[in-house]
Amino acid sequence: MSVDGALAWLDSHDQVSIDRWMEWLRIPSVGTDPKFDPDTRKAAEWCRDHLRESGFEVDLVETAVPEKGHRGQPVVFGHSPADPGYTGPRILFYGHYDVQPPDPLELWDSPPFEPVVKPAEGKVGERVVARGAQDDKGQVTMFLEAMRAWKETSGKAAGGVPFTVLIEGEEESGSVNLERFVEAHRDELAKCDVVLISDTTMLGRGRPAITYGVRGLVYTEFTLHASDQDLHSGAWGGKCPNPLNELAKTLAKLWDEDYRVTIPGFYDDVAPLTEEERAEWKKLGIDEVEQLADIGLGPDGDVGEKGFTMTEREWARPTCDINGMWGGYIGDGAKTVIPSHASAKVSFRLVANQDPKKILASFKQWLAEHTPKGCRWSEVADHGTGLGVTLPLDSDYLQAARRALKRVSDTDVAMIKSGGSIPVAGMLKNTLGLDTIFMGFGLEDDRIHSPNEKFELSSFRLGARAHVAFIQELLEMG
Amino acid sequence: MSVDGALAWLDSHDQVSIDRWMEWLRIPSVGTDPKFDPDTRKAAEWCRDHLRESGFEVDLVETAVPEKGHRGQPVVFGHSPADPGYTGPRILFYGHYDVQPPDPLELWDSPPFEPVVKPAEGKVGERVVARGAQDDKGQVTMFLEAMRAWKETSGKAAGGVPFTVLIEGEEESGSVNLERFVEAHRDELAKCDVVLISDTTMLGRGRPAITYGVRGLVYTEFTLHASDQDLHSGAWGGKCPNPLNELAKTLAKLWDEDYRVTIPGFYDDVAPLTEEERAEWKKLGIDEVEQLADIGLGPDGDVGEKGFTMTEREWARPTCDINGMWGGYIGDGAKTVIPSHASAKVSFRLVANQDPKKILASFKQWLAEHTPKGCRWSEVADHGTGLGVTLPLDSDYLQAARRALKRVSDTDVAMIKSGGSIPVAGMLKNTLGLDTIFMGFGLEDDRIHSPNEKFELSSFRLGARAHVAFIQELLEMG
Repeated sequence: MSVDGALAWLDSHDQVSIDRWMEWLRIPSVGTDPKFDPDTRKAAEWCRDHLRESGFEVDLVETAVPEKGHRGQPVVFGHSPADPGYTGPRILFYGHYDVQPPDPLELWDSPPFEPVVKPAEGKVGERVVARGAQDDKGQVTMFLEAMRAWKETSGKAAGGVPFTVLIEGEEESGSVNLERFVEAHRDELAKCDVVLISDTTMLGRGRPAITYGVRGLVYTEFTLHASDQDLHSGAWGGKCPNPLNELAKTLAKLWDEDYRVTIPGFYDDVAPLTEEERAEWKKLGIDEVEQLADIGLGPDGDVGEKGFTMTEREWARPTCDINGMWGGYIGDGAKTVIPSHASAKVSFRLVANQDPKKILASFKQWLAEHTPKGCRWSEVADHGTGLGVTLPLDSDYLQAARRALKRVSDTDVAMIKSGGSIPVAGMLKNTLGLDTIFMGFGLEDDRIHSPNEKFELSSFRLGARAHVAFIQELLEMG
Repeated sequence: MSVDGALAWLDSHDQVSIDRWMEWLRIPSVGTDPKFDPDTRKAAEWCRDHLRESGFEVDLVETAVPEKGHRGQPVVFGHSPADPGYTGPRILFYGHYDVQPPDPLELWDSPPFEPVVKPAEGKVGERVVARGAQDDKGQVTMFLEAMRAWKETSGKAAGGVPFTVLIEGEEESGSVNLERFVEAHRDELAKCDVVLISDTTMLGRGRPAITYGVRGLVYTEFTLHASDQDLHSGAWGGKCPNPLNELAKTLAKLWDEDYRVTIPGFYDDVAPLTEEERAEWKKLGIDEVEQLADIGLGPDGDVGEKGFTMTEREWARPTCDINGMWGGYIGDGAKTVIPSHASAKVSFRLVANQDPKKILASFKQWLAEHTPKGCRWSEVADHGTGLGVTLPLDSDYLQAARRALKRVSDTDVAMIKSGGSIPVAGMLKNTLGLDTIFMGFGLEDDRIHSPNEKFELSSFRLGARAHVAFIQELLEMG
């Protein structure tokens, strides 16, 4: 059997695939809320059973540590055996079956756990509306149905391609137990060659895309101290250090006139943007003026590192931002205070090859070297570092995914990056050294995390077909 | 009769003066709290009667506007006639009879409105402990007893010196009705030549002082806006303006490397510090290292405008301080937000000749000229401007007060300034053009506004004698 058979199977089983997807959506797997724990487990079992029916060996692995009073949701963990002759890569598929809480309920047009199919309206196509319709049950179902199609038509799990499947129930809770899980199953996971995640978006409606890089993150918080008490600005204004003045003056030095970060060595490990990428991205035709208009800014809102377009800055350039800053009197009216301290949260988005630990260390050193006279920093809190991940455009895995998606969409596949950080991908890179292919089919208007979340049937079908075709590409890689 | 007679009268009536002072302290004139309104009025009547007994024409003038639902405490308003041959200045004495709320009551060693005389302990001398013991009933009583001494010994109110007396009951409520009162009585008040206020401190124990200048104030608040919504720093970090980054960068430009304010023209109207003043202040022997130690700073906390000592900066130099700054996420943990806006409260302490309105206008213009790319300011809120007041050291009035204080203390009188702002003095300068002599007898450890407020008997006696001697100096000025 071949890819054509599996694709034909998808076509002829379209309605039962959608029915299964809606069946899963009816199980309210709100992982963050203990009162949904039985349902969340039921959703895990549903997923396990589905994979078993497609020939996978699957179990639920507990992450709870009851003796520590520690809740947890089981991981759906399984694998498919490799065909004897298979010499291609082993794929780690990651997804999650937990969903965001549905509140505020009153803003839903239909109950969040009673999925309905709605007809096309304007530019929005026919769609399933429910909590989790897209994030991530809808996107995972595409994969599950692709596996079923290959099993039904070839008789083999995943058509003989060795997959490891890790579908967790704690993604919306910050994947708090995932790293521990990965460490505990390192031997098996480390056999994989690349990660496949279906939890991102396309470039736009009818514009299928593969995301080949996300930015890393370093998030810090610190406080600048001067006097040991709040002072009256009459008696002390101009006499001793004001931590607010000094914090503003210090943080201002983080950037030069060209909006470049001034920390020594900050750009050392940044992979230069290639002319090829620049050209590719330009061809995508992203309307940056429209992006700015969407957030209420005119064209002069195009503010950032000199020499790069907005898209280039988001996808290929690191950045530094104050995410919070506070000190002194911030209530109504006036208080003539020189406060004893002032604080800030400062984060960095990093790009390929930048080591978050190294950036964190050099920022700490920079702060120490820029300590204002008469002041001191309290310890810099590390609110989390995440590794950026980027696959080279010529990666074999990436090219295979691209060919698969092109085969089923009959469209040029946009190779895009994301300015955000996907902590799971960074963690898998960090612990296992694995890169990630993000093959997602969401649309910006899918309202994930919001009332009336939806996933369009055309996206669902395209995603299932793409996963089917990806198996074929993998078989041919061997 | 002469000053010697009046001083002798004070000596021989010491106990009755103290008894009267304590009688007034027993009336709980907590002006801010409506439930004390009858007592507050009683305290005003007590003061009125005292002045009448000393030959003053005095009335209570209501400030309440009942039809506006507006509470108010009566002003004790009176005057003493000038002796036919008097050619010296007319003095406006300002004080207040309302006191701070006594809370927290449990921290008082004795009930706040049951004054007690406590014996000397260590460096602290014999003292009356009660709410208002110093601020301002104690300091006003010194003046009242001096008036009584002159009346008793010369037969004339204030010994024939024309005084206008304005003792209000709303000082602890921000003197909310005072400017209106002054406008309504402008004709009478404008006849005065100088203001006398007894509500400040000495340089230290046994170091009598006259305060000849206080700083002015401009207090502003404003917000910097970029996008019309909070943004995710993954998607937007480095792509568009971050109001927190830009606010820090802008405010940092307010000062140069020498901690001088960079707003054009800011120093134009600043009276230069004379070599004479520098020498005088140096002679005061103020221990700046100890001042810093008191607020937990080492000698490197001596941070401020280059070329001036700490005392010089407080008394003679204007300054600019951020008093509050906030924006983005300021809760626990991390949120990767690029906020739509960020805010700050910025104030200026001004010195002699600087016009608060002009400084406010130039700061607004400076902000406009430093608008970060892609951003806009919302309107700058004016939380109040106060005029600084300074008398030239060679002012005849000041010299008269200095001679009076030297005569009764037999000590060099420290001529000092204050970095704080006394809004009443600024308002009287602004509305009537009157300068103020601050002849106060408090000590830093009098705990005004705190439990166990006290005023030492030696301060009380010195103050009463100084006011007696000041009358003599005024008589001799004519």
